[in-house]
Amino acid sequence: MADTNSTPILKDDLDIVIPTIRNLDFLEMWRPFFQPYHLIIVQDGDPSKTIRVPDGFDYELYNRNDINRILGSKASCISFKDSACRCFGYLISKKKYIFTIDDDCFVAKDPSGKEINALEQHIKNVLTPSTPFFFNTLYDPYREGADFVRGYPFSLREGVPTAVSHGLWLNIPDYDAPTQLVKPMERNTRYVDAVLTVPKATLFPMCGMNLAFNRDLIGPAMYFGLMGDGQPIGRYDDMWAGWCMKVICDHLGFGVKTGLPYIWHSKASNPFTNLRKEYKGIFWQEQIIPFFQTVSLPKDCNTVQKCYIELSKLVREKLSSVDEYFIKLADAMLTWIEAWDELNPSEEATELSKFVSK
Amino acid sequence: MADTNSTPILKDDLDIVIPTIRNLDFLEMWRPFFQPYHLIIVQDGDPSKTIRVPDGFDYELYNRNDINRILGSKASCISFKDSACRCFGYLISKKKYIFTIDDDCFVAKDPSGKEINALEQHIKNVLTPSTPFFFNTLYDPYREGADFVRGYPFSLREGVPTAVSHGLWLNIPDYDAPTQLVKPMERNTRYVDAVLTVPKATLFPMCGMNLAFNRDLIGPAMYFGLMGDGQPIGRYDDMWAGWCMKVICDHLGFGVKTGLPYIWHSKASNPFTNLRKEYKGIFWQEQIIPFFQTVSLPKDCNTVQKCYIELSKLVREKLSSVDEYFIKLADAMLTWIEAWDELNPSEEATELSKFVSK
Repeated sequence: MADTNSTPILKDDLDIVIPTIRNLDFLEMWRPFFQPYHLIIVQDGDPSKTIRVPDGFDYELYNRNDINRILGSKASCISFKDSACRCFGYLISKKKYIFTIDDDCFVAKDPSGKEINALEQHIKNVLTPSTPFFFNTLYDPYREGADFVRGYPFSLREGVPTAVSHGLWLNIPDYDAPTQLVKPMERNTRYVDAVLTVPKATLFPMCGMNLAFNRDLIGPAMYFGLMGDGQPIGRYDDMWAGWCMKVICDHLGFGVKTGLPYIWHSKASNPFTNLRKEYKGIFWQEQIIPFFQTVSLPKDCNTVQKCYIELSKLVREKLSSVDEYFIKLADAMLTWIEAWDELNPSEEATELSKFVSK
Repeated sequence: MADTNSTPILKDDLDIVIPTIRNLDFLEMWRPFFQPYHLIIVQDGDPSKTIRVPDGFDYELYNRNDINRILGSKASCISFKDSACRCFGYLISKKKYIFTIDDDCFVAKDPSGKEINALEQHIKNVLTPSTPFFFNTLYDPYREGADFVRGYPFSLREGVPTAVSHGLWLNIPDYDAPTQLVKPMERNTRYVDAVLTVPKATLFPMCGMNLAFNRDLIGPAMYFGLMGDGQPIGRYDDMWAGWCMKVICDHLGFGVKTGLPYIWHSKASNPFTNLRKEYKGIFWQEQIIPFFQTVSLPKDCNTVQKCYIELSKLVREKLSSVDEYFIKLADAMLTWIEAWDELNPSEEATELSKFVSK
């Protein structure tokens, strides 16, 4: 059982990645929670614009010129004019954990009125195991005051390493454009006090707004795809990463959690703009989901990189009939892995093999 | 979207099944919620004992003599001196829905202090669809104030019929004997305001304390097995039913929900007695779970009865090596279906076929 009171804050082991096009005034509200950490700011759009970061934060900032300079021809895999550019931050980080948050996300309050330290909850989530093989009806069994219930096999109670912690949003829910249009006034006011493991073989819509992950375990799978400028699609960057990441976690025996922490999502994006970005995704996903639901990775794919390269082959083979965009995407997936390996020439691949499920 | 305000109370379509060995004084607390409904009381233990039911309730009561008289030789499939006897109530009911509750379960309060009408919440759960094929991160998308989030395939938003609603417990959690012994003082105080679908291909520990189901859809799979008197095992009745039910729901395309409503579970059962009843189950389940995780039912099993008969064959074939008890259990599963068909000679089997997934 994890002692939730002694959770280390991972100050030297975690980077906060923020994609943005504007001054980062939203950090003022997060100051008590984020100031001890290092920030990686990925500036999207016009690189000549100056982004103002409130005083006292420790950060590095990359604009498009930096990305092009650092990655050279491989910079083609990093999206432009889309929050998908955030994955450059995952690539350039040298830390074990990443927390990424959007600049329209503020500190939420729990039902008692207390401000929620979202990062602290994510850290608890990634540092405690996941339970993907059997559902626990009292949710996270490692949480204080909870445990595994009667009928939960004892052999599964050790859990597996947690790769991803997916947090939620109060106020503006993460709806697609059609739902935004139909329910413009809907707000999420329900605080669900739970963290749970997304079961093995179950896909979910991963939102990139409030997300943490173990970069050592799953980093190379957290590619946010080709979106935005010059691409036929937007607002599917995090979904794509989520689907790829989940099938790889299932294959390698890692866990994915969703639930707490909540952030306060301040404003709804324009539903008409969103519809233009999303509409291809809305019908493509009807074929993408069955594809991911039936993906089977070979046994010898025992590192995230190997899994991801295999997945890119399958994307090319199975999804190119949906649209030729998926050929470009499959290429970009390979370029991403090349870039990852170039910037991260470590023994991670070998180290990872010890976690691989038999 | 279901209008939660207009939920019919199903007064004439639902029976409340209560297994007991004692006077049903606990019903006093439930009077405002249960009085409109018909109760089926299954008296366990000494049939000469008189069970007192508070005035004003509409009920029928069956003791062991009644069960023997009604089922004849088939009465052997109904457990004695174990709450598994409750499934006789499912058999004898003629209603579409069943709610079953233990007599040590009281009315819980929500965080605002309001008494929870558990039955009303179960009715909402079973009358709205389930979403087993893809996880929705805002939980039940049919609930007021919630919906499907971005990235949820539109083709899956209609959901599937809900077969089972599994409710939870505040105060005494449903722990196994070893966990009870290790954490004698642990109480569940966390009210998680969520209902969610247990994803397809995911098993969970179904507790029979606070449970509702659509008897027309899944009734014949809700057999609570051979437990208690003369059997080597107890306290696995609901677990067994849950595992059988879940693989059949997955096969037929029905949904299973867990979460709200909570009841107040008043007292922990004796952990030493529980350990004696459970200990075989604790090691048997290490083989039972992998069995259920890999069960595959043939396509032509297009009714619950056919699925259940097939499952009994597989139990005999695959689990008899664990213990010869499973041969007896497989026989009892067949007897149960014979008894079900005898007492329920309807066209349900044909009607059901329309729900079967392609």
